[in-house]
Amino acid sequence: MTEQSPASELLQTTVDQYPWLGESIDRLRELGHDYWNRGWSRGTSSNYSVVIDRNPMRLLVTASGKDKGHLGRNDFVIVDEEGNLSPKDQAKSSAETLLHCSAVLHQNAGAVLHTHSVWATILSQHYSALNGIWIEGFEMLKGLEGISTHESKIWLPIFDNTQEIPALREQVEAFWSENPSTRCWGYLIRQHGMYCWGSDLSQAIRHMEVLEFLLECIGLKMSVS
Amino acid sequence: MTEQSPASELLQTTVDQYPWLGESIDRLRELGHDYWNRGWSRGTSSNYSVVIDRNPMRLLVTASGKDKGHLGRNDFVIVDEEGNLSPKDQAKSSAETLLHCSAVLHQNAGAVLHTHSVWATILSQHYSALNGIWIEGFEMLKGLEGISTHESKIWLPIFDNTQEIPALREQVEAFWSENPSTRCWGYLIRQHGMYCWGSDLSQAIRHMEVLEFLLECIGLKMSVS
Amino acid sequence: MTEQSPASELLQTTVDQYPWLGESIDRLRELGHDYWNRGWSRGTSSNYSVVIDRNPMRLLVTASGKDKGHLGRNDFVIVDEEGNLSPKDQAKSSAETLLHCSAVLHQNAGAVLHTHSVWATILSQHYSALNGIWIEGFEMLKGLEGISTHESKIWLPIFDNTQEIPALREQVEAFWSENPSTRCWGYLIRQHGMYCWGSDLSQAIRHMEVLEFLLECIGLKMSVS
Amino acid sequence: MTEQSPASELLQTTVDQYPWLGESIDRLRELGHDYWNRGWSRGTSSNYSVVIDRNPMRLLVTASGKDKGHLGRNDFVIVDEEGNLSPKDQAKSSAETLLHCSAVLHQNAGAVLHTHSVWATILSQHYSALNGIWIEGFEMLKGLEGISTHESKIWLPIFDNTQEIPALREQVEAFWSENPSTRCWGYLIRQHGMYCWGSDLSQAIRHMEVLEFLLECIGLKMSVS
Repeated sequence: MTEQSPASELLQTTVDQYPWLGESIDRLRELGHDYWNRGWSRGTSSNYSVVIDRNPMRLLVTASGKDKGHLGRNDFVIVDEEGNLSPKDQAKSSAETLLHCSAVLHQNAGAVLHTHSVWATILSQHYSALNGIWIEGFEMLKGLEGISTHESKIWLPIFDNTQEIPALREQVEAFWSENPSTRCWGYLIRQHGMYCWGSDLSQAIRHMEVLEFLLECIGLKMSVS
Repeated sequence: MTEQSPASELLQTTVDQYPWLGESIDRLRELGHDYWNRGWSRGTSSNYSVVIDRNPMRLLVTASGKDKGHLGRNDFVIVDEEGNLSPKDQAKSSAETLLHCSAVLHQNAGAVLHTHSVWATILSQHYSALNGIWIEGFEMLKGLEGISTHESKIWLPIFDNTQEIPALREQVEAFWSENPSTRCWGYLIRQHGMYCWGSDLSQAIRHMEVLEFLLECIGLKMSVS
Repeated sequence: MTEQSPASELLQTTVDQYPWLGESIDRLRELGHDYWNRGWSRGTSSNYSVVIDRNPMRLLVTASGKDKGHLGRNDFVIVDEEGNLSPKDQAKSSAETLLHCSAVLHQNAGAVLHTHSVWATILSQHYSALNGIWIEGFEMLKGLEGISTHESKIWLPIFDNTQEIPALREQVEAFWSENPSTRCWGYLIRQHGMYCWGSDLSQAIRHMEVLEFLLECIGLKMSVS
Repeated sequence: MTEQSPASELLQTTVDQYPWLGESIDRLRELGHDYWNRGWSRGTSSNYSVVIDRNPMRLLVTASGKDKGHLGRNDFVIVDEEGNLSPKDQAKSSAETLLHCSAVLHQNAGAVLHTHSVWATILSQHYSALNGIWIEGFEMLKGLEGISTHESKIWLPIFDNTQEIPALREQVEAFWSENPSTRCWGYLIRQHGMYCWGSDLSQAIRHMEVLEFLLECIGLKMSVS
């Protein structure tokens, strides 16, 4: 971790209003360092968010293009439910912020994590023709909220990559609305990475660890067969 | 490591009675961070225990659902030989605590470690039809208590996974009683993970490192053949 | 990081003249530790440089044969555009310094990083008959300056290894001049390693992380197919 | 690193006599932590040594059975050229100490490192029928003392494992005397691990990093072919 610049005025005011947010910011910074170290957030890729308020919706999200291994206290912006900076006068946010908002609005996420691990990248390509990956039989599945036995089978959807984020958002939301009984903790984007979420930051972190573990099992299992 | 909350009253009283236990707790916390870092205890999986007393038996074990990478001083509970909280008024313990008790009672373990590594998960599935893995010829085998030459061949049993822990316990104990001359340092549960133990915490840690090393050798050897 | 010996007189004088250089030196030391830790700069291999001035050109570069995991503040030398020590009275610089100068002069690099990762070594041999590797379709490509969509296809050239660095430099520069429309962020040398660069140190670091990530994806993908 | 117990009387007296030795001890402790962390010295395996004096020969070597990830200042013993404790009244040293002495006496080593990495273990078995591994064409070879071009081909001998260390020592020394023109930086023992050395500790560390890097290249290359 490098120097901690004093929080910008906006972020400071927001932390004053939502005191728990300061701890979330520090946790995201520590998380960024860990994910960068593991190779899940290299080359300034990835973005992470936590919900500040739902009425109106306000989301804290990493600013665009930051080195996730060395996030400073001010490397975050605040957006509204359309992913627009609110207020306007802030650093740029990623175009993909819209996918964070989408998970908050449609999956009731309290925190969203987007990473670019090697296994997510490789397996999202390997299984792309199937539009997803069935994962079953692993005890580790029980780390996903709502799963109470290893005798479960989950579907991890894969969406094609595109630079038109609103179009991608539509695809993702169409999948959710067309498959209302398919529980969803995250998804892959082809040759791109993973999105996952949880009702709060701790749960989102747990889900990310579980899904990455399962992908690594699937990938390494192929290498020994 | 995050903040160290003051030990709860029960744990503090117990540490006052068994002064060496404070060091064991700190060592388990450090161990959790290391195992989490290596990917053996992701997504709040795993649990670790040390025997406090044998008469009557009292076991210190990680409380259920804790992030093993950031265990606090109070993230432990005390159970009796049936794996029940003793006293009752504590945080939840994992249902699998029974398997810890089982190793303490039948293998004379002083400490039990349960992890979910990628190789333990993959190989427990790969070899499940054989009900175990023969491991032989490795110098590293000498790290297992009682082995004095690499010209040894050990059997690492694999049990089917189930959410009915008492049934799993019965299977494990039946294996031990039916194979009294087969020395056992640990076992795998299919697509789940590893259990191993030692006469004290240091020996359990050594056995875990040895068995994980051997599984990694076996797994990577397959990938190059 | 080990002890920080006081900067030598020359380096101290130069840092006095270019105050931002002190931070660059510390960042290269931290980078060395990270790359060494990841296995990209083992056995005293690798060298890293940053441009101090362009008129006349002066380049700060790691001295020859230093352990990159434990760089001291004085483990750097200053060279001119021909890679010669300037002034003469300094520790030895690597013969490969000429390749750093080449990227500065012909690719407008402000910083150059040379590493020896396992994947760069293996893939530079695997694809050597093709003289390079096509990389396409990865979102992570957008981490390369000038790339704005994953629907890009880049060419990572591979040059044969030789101990005659001026000859190697000629080959590299001939490639650049014969392919003026092929954007180049780095290249591989067969069974040797990677060179990459950026307009400044931050960009060079980002490019290295991106290219290493892509090579790891390509390598691991082969192992599962 | 855990607590630093005060150096035992013998070690303290020796450090008083050879003041540079204190730094070597700290470096071996740091090295042990690094090797343990990388998985080269798990389960209390491995041992490391440095020459204290040659006339008469005195070698500082890690005591038997210590956790290499957490070596204390007193976890070392002093042996003579036959590998016997000198003076007698010290902790046990490993039977393999004799192989350290052998490299000191016959290869003029000033420091000897013995590790148990996964790749050394796997490849020592994979190539055991050939009695060694040819390694050629890698730039990293230049990290071995006396190699000045990647156009070199070295032989890394593999010896069968045995618990009779004097017999193993004889085999190793027979190889050296029968192949006087074959330069040797280290060797493998089948399903056991690596021995390597250097004229001093820095060179031994460099050689270990180089040889482990080359084994990892050879192993991973097989997995992608």
